[in-house]
Amino acid sequence: MEKIKPRTLSGFMELLPGHQVYFDTMIRKLRESFALYGFTPLDTPLMEAAEILLAKGGGETEKQIYTLSKGDTDLALRYELTTSLAKYVALNYSRLTFPFRRYEIGKVYRGERAQRGRFREFYQADIDIIGDGGLDVLNEAEIPSVIYRCFKSLGLERFVIRINNRKVLSGFFEIIGVGGKVTDVLRMVDKLDKIGVTKLTEALTNDLGLTNNQVTEILDFVTHKGDPFEVIDKYRGRNELFDSGADELAAIRQHITGLGVPDTHFKIDLAIARGLDYYTGTVYETYLLDHPQVGAICSGGRYDNLAGYYTDKNLPGVGISIGMTRLFYILQEQGLLNESVLTAPADVLIIPMTDDLSHAVLLAAAMRESGLRTQIYGENKKFKVKVSYADKLEIPYVVFLGEDEILEGKITVKDMTSGEQTTAESSLLIARISEKINALRSGAPIKEV
Amino acid sequence: MEKIKPRTLSGFMELLPGHQVYFDTMIRKLRESFALYGFTPLDTPLMEAAEILLAKGGGETEKQIYTLSKGDTDLALRYELTTSLAKYVALNYSRLTFPFRRYEIGKVYRGERAQRGRFREFYQADIDIIGDGGLDVLNEAEIPSVIYRCFKSLGLERFVIRINNRKVLSGFFEIIGVGGKVTDVLRMVDKLDKIGVTKLTEALTNDLGLTNNQVTEILDFVTHKGDPFEVIDKYRGRNELFDSGADELAAIRQHITGLGVPDTHFKIDLAIARGLDYYTGTVYETYLLDHPQVGAICSGGRYDNLAGYYTDKNLPGVGISIGMTRLFYILQEQGLLNESVLTAPADVLIIPMTDDLSHAVLLAAAMRESGLRTQIYGENKKFKVKVSYADKLEIPYVVFLGEDEILEGKITVKDMTSGEQTTAESSLLIARISEKINALRSGAPIKEV
Repeated sequence: MEKIKPRTLSGFMELLPGHQVYFDTMIRKLRESFALYGFTPLDTPLMEAAEILLAKGGGETEKQIYTLSKGDTDLALRYELTTSLAKYVALNYSRLTFPFRRYEIGKVYRGERAQRGRFREFYQADIDIIGDGGLDVLNEAEIPSVIYRCFKSLGLERFVIRINNRKVLSGFFEIIGVGGKVTDVLRMVDKLDKIGVTKLTEALTNDLGLTNNQVTEILDFVTHKGDPFEVIDKYRGRNELFDSGADELAAIRQHITGLGVPDTHFKIDLAIARGLDYYTGTVYETYLLDHPQVGAICSGGRYDNLAGYYTDKNLPGVGISIGMTRLFYILQEQGLLNESVLTAPADVLIIPMTDDLSHAVLLAAAMRESGLRTQIYGENKKFKVKVSYADKLEIPYVVFLGEDEILEGKITVKDMTSGEQTTAESSLLIARISEKINALRSGAPIKEV
Repeated sequence: MEKIKPRTLSGFMELLPGHQVYFDTMIRKLRESFALYGFTPLDTPLMEAAEILLAKGGGETEKQIYTLSKGDTDLALRYELTTSLAKYVALNYSRLTFPFRRYEIGKVYRGERAQRGRFREFYQADIDIIGDGGLDVLNEAEIPSVIYRCFKSLGLERFVIRINNRKVLSGFFEIIGVGGKVTDVLRMVDKLDKIGVTKLTEALTNDLGLTNNQVTEILDFVTHKGDPFEVIDKYRGRNELFDSGADELAAIRQHITGLGVPDTHFKIDLAIARGLDYYTGTVYETYLLDHPQVGAICSGGRYDNLAGYYTDKNLPGVGISIGMTRLFYILQEQGLLNESVLTAPADVLIIPMTDDLSHAVLLAAAMRESGLRTQIYGENKKFKVKVSYADKLEIPYVVFLGEDEILEGKITVKDMTSGEQTTAESSLLIARISEKINALRSGAPIKEV
């Protein structure tokens, strides 16, 4: 028979079993963290009618959308989770209770040019809080706390959540007389990290025609070291938008410590703007301290209108998104997967040493009943092959069940790490193994050096 | 602004938050059950190169595949998980250890005609064990035990796993002289449940030209009541294939009880054939006793060659698949979702009664630290609206934090089910709530009446 060459599409992450365990563990940790803050899980379709996904329209994103058709319907694969959320909330408005807190962790699709570390199919992990007509700033204060808990639960230590407020920036620009160019100025200020002070100065002066004074004020404002409220307070009382944003930033700073985020892990950074036009208040960007070249690994913010394409209802919200596939790719590239995490498919491999397998079968059932992931090696192979099966899969315990053991009502357990071998009653050894396995299971998937 | 009507494609299940919790719980239970048997999780791409998905080729399925193209690559969405597994094993052969036990729970796509209870996007939950050159029958014996544990963990009680062996059927047909028509006869026998004895007799006689004797022997064989080995043993020693299948069935029956499946929940049923051509040994079908019209909710079997399209390696396997979306749809249609399961997004809602939210924030942090899913109600609404928020979302506990409580270092908790209200130290009440919440969490998602 003519053979087909097996292949996986480029830009599609397909993990080997060990790495899949790390990835799944990370997803589970995120779910647990999100749940602690009252977010409910959603799982929306990956495919939507094209007009739904293209509602926002235009731009680079639209070119990247995978479209297809079946019968007379034009279909598209989602390229983010927010569009699906907007549709969901508009469609189910009367059946939801607001503020509506949901998380969704799912695959999205972008037909980007394939390159290392860029994915066409990737997981996003999103949380959003949607209000009906209004949404208190307390919700915005909680978001950094969720981010902090999420990354800590993954095992990450060295990261910082940068926080700013678009109202503060927009108000400030109005105050210094560049209010007519807010969007352009914002877009350039957002590049400060990448292009540096000199190039930003040039761009603001030459491209946007700002005066030297204006440029100086902007640079003093966005690069201010020390307490940001020193510079914020200088401009208070001159612009309503500015003051309202400043109050929000102050409220967030007040609550963030109470919510458990240490000073080391957040920073009010007046240079953060976020490229997207639709943020209207607080914005967030999270960076890995040791890998700044990676860019923001989690970002988002406050928006005024989630579902304006579908409904006149005023649905303000705040949300963030974590690009999990890319984050995982980076962490494993950097060698940060915690090697002491148990990635084996089983905790115990039972190797029967008699032709009659009935004792092995009963033992496996008992071990599973007590929560141990147990496999019986039933293949007719040499003893060495059987033991090397456990070795290759890094199964931590092997049980030998021979005639002697069966006669004495005992089992022999080999600890594959230490090589130590113990013969005793099965209930005793099951308890002992369970304890050690629970310890192995409790580790975080990531370990920063 | 012109509004777009929000809609979800027909044939795509999109659940309201409460139902999503049931569904997610079911998925989690399956993952736990699969893991206990040493199956490792995989998560393969939903999209493949078209030539990979169409390798099997032909038939009804091909017409249902969603295809698309991007650049110069023809792409397709997977319509089952086995094709992806075959590609994965062929591609990663040298990096895997065999027998390779994997599970995958993921979405698949079929462009079927939309009708009630039929889905175009749906979850399959698959387990497979792949051997390299051979695979012991013990693996086949374990499969019903996995099925049993899965459904029990969901809360299902009234189901039966029917087991047969294709070698027994094929060998039997050879013995009675209809060996040349095995596939046709199998296909008809497989319909016995649907068409009944009379129509099967007609079909075998008229359409396939079997003699009256042959038809009688077939019917006696496949409809035998009582111990199936009574009728199996009558034919032993006359056909190698038959004897080998009979030995396998006997081995499975021997181990299945030891593996924890009670007699009430499995049945060797010589009429089960499975439509698919590629099963070569044991076959399984699982039925809900009270909903036979639903058909098999979990089926599969032993096959000789997983990845013949890609490799000359001999990779026999055994596997089953559960159509989770359809199963969930049926269970909720039948009113079998366990109402005592906690579907609220949070365990506790904190309602601050003071303008200063700092105490509420600290309390929320403490509750989350102790594992309670906690939300602070921060919106500026009337008291009644705040309490009704908890009511609508069925959040079981509400905490009131007023000046009195803050001064006394206490909190007031209202049990929303009983209406009972208690004021005490927070640590005491957190412990008490945690205990009750753990009890609420332990219930199975399904409850059969």
